[in-house]
Amino acid sequence: MMNVPLTVGSLLERAERFFPKKQVISRTHSRIHRLTYKEVGERTRRLMSALKTLGIRKGERAGTLAWNHHRHLEVYFAAPGIGAVLHTINMRLSPEHIIYIINHAEDKVLFIDEDIVPLIERIADKLPTVKAYVIMTDQPEMPETTLQPVYSYEQLLKAGNPDEQFITDIGENEPAGMCYTSATTGNPKGVIYSHRGIVLHSYALGLADTAALSESDVAMAVVPMFHVNAWGVPFAAAWFGTTQVMPGPQFTPKLLAEFIEQEKVTITAGVPTIWLGLMRELEEASYDISSLRAVLCGGSAAPRGMIQTFEQKFNVPFLHAYGMTETSPLATVSRLKSYQSNLSEEEKLDQRAKQGLLVPGLEMKIVGAHGEVAWDGKEMGELLIRGPWIANEYYKDERTNEAFKDGWLYTGDVATVDEEGVIKLVDRTKDLIKSGGEWISSVDLENALMAHEAVFEASVVAVPDAEWQERPVACVVLKDHFKGQVEKEELLQFLAPQFAKWWLPDDVVFIEEIPKTSVGKFLKRALREQLKGHYAEKN
Amino acid sequence: MMNVPLTVGSLLERAERFFPKKQVISRTHSRIHRLTYKEVGERTRRLMSALKTLGIRKGERAGTLAWNHHRHLEVYFAAPGIGAVLHTINMRLSPEHIIYIINHAEDKVLFIDEDIVPLIERIADKLPTVKAYVIMTDQPEMPETTLQPVYSYEQLLKAGNPDEQFITDIGENEPAGMCYTSATTGNPKGVIYSHRGIVLHSYALGLADTAALSESDVAMAVVPMFHVNAWGVPFAAAWFGTTQVMPGPQFTPKLLAEFIEQEKVTITAGVPTIWLGLMRELEEASYDISSLRAVLCGGSAAPRGMIQTFEQKFNVPFLHAYGMTETSPLATVSRLKSYQSNLSEEEKLDQRAKQGLLVPGLEMKIVGAHGEVAWDGKEMGELLIRGPWIANEYYKDERTNEAFKDGWLYTGDVATVDEEGVIKLVDRTKDLIKSGGEWISSVDLENALMAHEAVFEASVVAVPDAEWQERPVACVVLKDHFKGQVEKEELLQFLAPQFAKWWLPDDVVFIEEIPKTSVGKFLKRALREQLKGHYAEKN
Repeated sequence: MMNVPLTVGSLLERAERFFPKKQVISRTHSRIHRLTYKEVGERTRRLMSALKTLGIRKGERAGTLAWNHHRHLEVYFAAPGIGAVLHTINMRLSPEHIIYIINHAEDKVLFIDEDIVPLIERIADKLPTVKAYVIMTDQPEMPETTLQPVYSYEQLLKAGNPDEQFITDIGENEPAGMCYTSATTGNPKGVIYSHRGIVLHSYALGLADTAALSESDVAMAVVPMFHVNAWGVPFAAAWFGTTQVMPGPQFTPKLLAEFIEQEKVTITAGVPTIWLGLMRELEEASYDISSLRAVLCGGSAAPRGMIQTFEQKFNVPFLHAYGMTETSPLATVSRLKSYQSNLSEEEKLDQRAKQGLLVPGLEMKIVGAHGEVAWDGKEMGELLIRGPWIANEYYKDERTNEAFKDGWLYTGDVATVDEEGVIKLVDRTKDLIKSGGEWISSVDLENALMAHEAVFEASVVAVPDAEWQERPVACVVLKDHFKGQVEKEELLQFLAPQFAKWWLPDDVVFIEEIPKTSVGKFLKRALREQLKGHYAEKN
Repeated sequence: MMNVPLTVGSLLERAERFFPKKQVISRTHSRIHRLTYKEVGERTRRLMSALKTLGIRKGERAGTLAWNHHRHLEVYFAAPGIGAVLHTINMRLSPEHIIYIINHAEDKVLFIDEDIVPLIERIADKLPTVKAYVIMTDQPEMPETTLQPVYSYEQLLKAGNPDEQFITDIGENEPAGMCYTSATTGNPKGVIYSHRGIVLHSYALGLADTAALSESDVAMAVVPMFHVNAWGVPFAAAWFGTTQVMPGPQFTPKLLAEFIEQEKVTITAGVPTIWLGLMRELEEASYDISSLRAVLCGGSAAPRGMIQTFEQKFNVPFLHAYGMTETSPLATVSRLKSYQSNLSEEEKLDQRAKQGLLVPGLEMKIVGAHGEVAWDGKEMGELLIRGPWIANEYYKDERTNEAFKDGWLYTGDVATVDEEGVIKLVDRTKDLIKSGGEWISSVDLENALMAHEAVFEASVVAVPDAEWQERPVACVVLKDHFKGQVEKEELLQFLAPQFAKWWLPDDVVFIEEIPKTSVGKFLKRALREQLKGHYAEKN
């Protein structure tokens, strides 16, 4: 067979050639832009030549601090398009972590949304590797800034060459992208994505049995583009000629619902918190969301009750998936097998609420205290994954040794696997509650609590216990109209029939909001800190 | 990213692990077998250990002379599963070509269906490289044979190790499969398929926008397993957990229609000749074929009238595709783009009758007399293809230099490409009719003729002409109940409004049957010979 490398540039090239009329619909700070792939292609080529003019060379990192919009999409292809590395930065991290990340990656250029400029101005003197700041704005005038040297994105494009060619003289294992993932303690950890990994992952997104991303789709990635390449949707969607809807800096539930209705979005992707918000919006106001054929949900486990609401109340198929920064991220997708069509609605929902089946191309095993666990849906163990779009290290980081062993990624996720090979996450290894030598899954308790009609969100964490080592405590946010009307006892009685007695939380604490990470995951560390304070006050 | 090679063994391993209950339904000479993927997996592992016992080593070729059934499927995975090479042999070729192929590939073992044994016995003394003959039969007793040394397939399996492991210590560019393609003149030419190529091609078959092969499908490859790996369906179907229906040595239209009805086949794949036969069967008898979601058709251009009959009369979506032995074979698939839904039924059919859009992962260009042709649907040129599942040579064959140049495969197919990037084959470079310095597409004329209600099959070939160099002559097979009732003039008048006057055939010759290749393609060389005789008699 021909020795043709898999490269990121070829993905956009296909969109340019075969889908030049198809659109990218992008909301920025000031307005909605409608560009064709022909235009996005030409602008990307201009940007590639501009990057070269700025002195960015093969292998060097181009950082972005930006929301989901067409300019960010152009950098997605332009950086790997010249053999450089797209480095998406989570601007919601602390300034210290942002400084660490930019210096650790040795970013040579930063692409910055106008609302992020002040944040970068405050840390610019600590960024010695950055040779150029590029501000992405709709305005004809650049905002006033202390950043130096600074360029206007659109001015750079104007001066660029629209016929610049995508690099072909590059090995497919060369880096194309980079993303840092937050660590429980210490600095974020860098993950490198290769050209090969991104292309294979794009195939995985197009398979009929996974997300089935298609030319006929209108795809809206709500998951931020600084979070694992927006799950690879921008790459795959361009390749397949899929219309892309990019919600920009503001993605309130209301704006998302409007966008779905107006642009006839068929598939959208985001974390459970986003869908909880959208669910509330859809319950309160009326939208036509009949175009939706799939809500792809990952990042953390989706509550069963939410899946049920989307499927049965809104009639929107819910695609529960699993992955992480280290897995590009698509690792599993939950779909029923064809012979499961005769299950009851409840059984189907149980199955769909699991994380699902490994995507073609990956391998897995689940390792408990005594080796690989039985495929019985009960025995818990840590999920290990390997495959061509799974990271093999943290970039220049000693913590590589903790997560990558014997050719496997140790995910830090605790899971069971049933007779069908379907995995169900039960916890993070660090969030498991170890009580009296047994394991209690905080996630199972949370999902059960969130199925209660009064509960908006719930998080269960371990508190130290003299007798049992650790015991579970539930932190619950009630829905507005239930506030003050539900007691701890009611919730514990609601849980009682579903769990062994020793699993039941020792306490239920009602709080106003569950602290979250910048990508919407429950921040259990912060919650455990809060609880310490709570019990200190109480005692 | 992890350095994990793409290997063929991993495809079946996924079926074993995640779809152990799904079935392979296989018709052999004597009966229908129903095996689960768990059983196929175990039998394949036994076969792998048997191959090792027979002394087959990494890189060596294992030949097959067999129909589409489960044992052939097991060899598909067992040979590459130990690092050897699956070499499928077209037993319909002449004995001389079969001898050439086996010697050229240096096959070490031959797997032979019982009905093929006599054929091999007659040539066995000319096969010095073959160390073992394995006969695939349902019978407890081996047939009497002069082949030596000879083994019973089922006996080998009984002695084999069910826990044999698929090779992992192998580069993905190593050969996994091999197939010879007939040449216009001279010996067949060998094409090698790598592990990487087969896996990437399997991804391509699973994409929502191509064949969308899925776990929920029941796939029946009618295209023989000795013809470009049955278009890769056996590999991809196992990977995705798709039920496989294998029609065995007899695939008459009646048996195919019955199989579709009984096994609720959802997707089937084969050449136009097969579907012409099925079409006649469906017109004559009544079958429930409502399970079919797609008829994948390739190998040669499908007549527009046939696509129309399947779609409009039988309500079966027709997936027109294009490829060749050198392209693994999937290269293009014809589907409408989402924004073409407002075309008229006629326009849609016109578009669907083209060969379609390049599959993600490949590159193409069409080169005419003056370089790349315009994308206007008119200008003709030779189709060039490149990509990771495209051959880069003919195995140990000087003719490599004719077809592989500057990193491209010169397909020998003449095509146009329209504004949408959709290609339409207009001829083989060797079948084009060169009349007065202009090109006439024999295929266009054939398709137009086959749209006439009286015409069953038609082939248009060049005859030498003193004045114009070449002129077209049409050879027509009438449907039974139209025989003797249609004149040459009627057909020419039918064509006249559709073509420039100088395109119209100089003559129409009514014949009983169009000679075909062993894989059902029109054998134009033989037709040109027949015509020589025809005109010699006439004159």
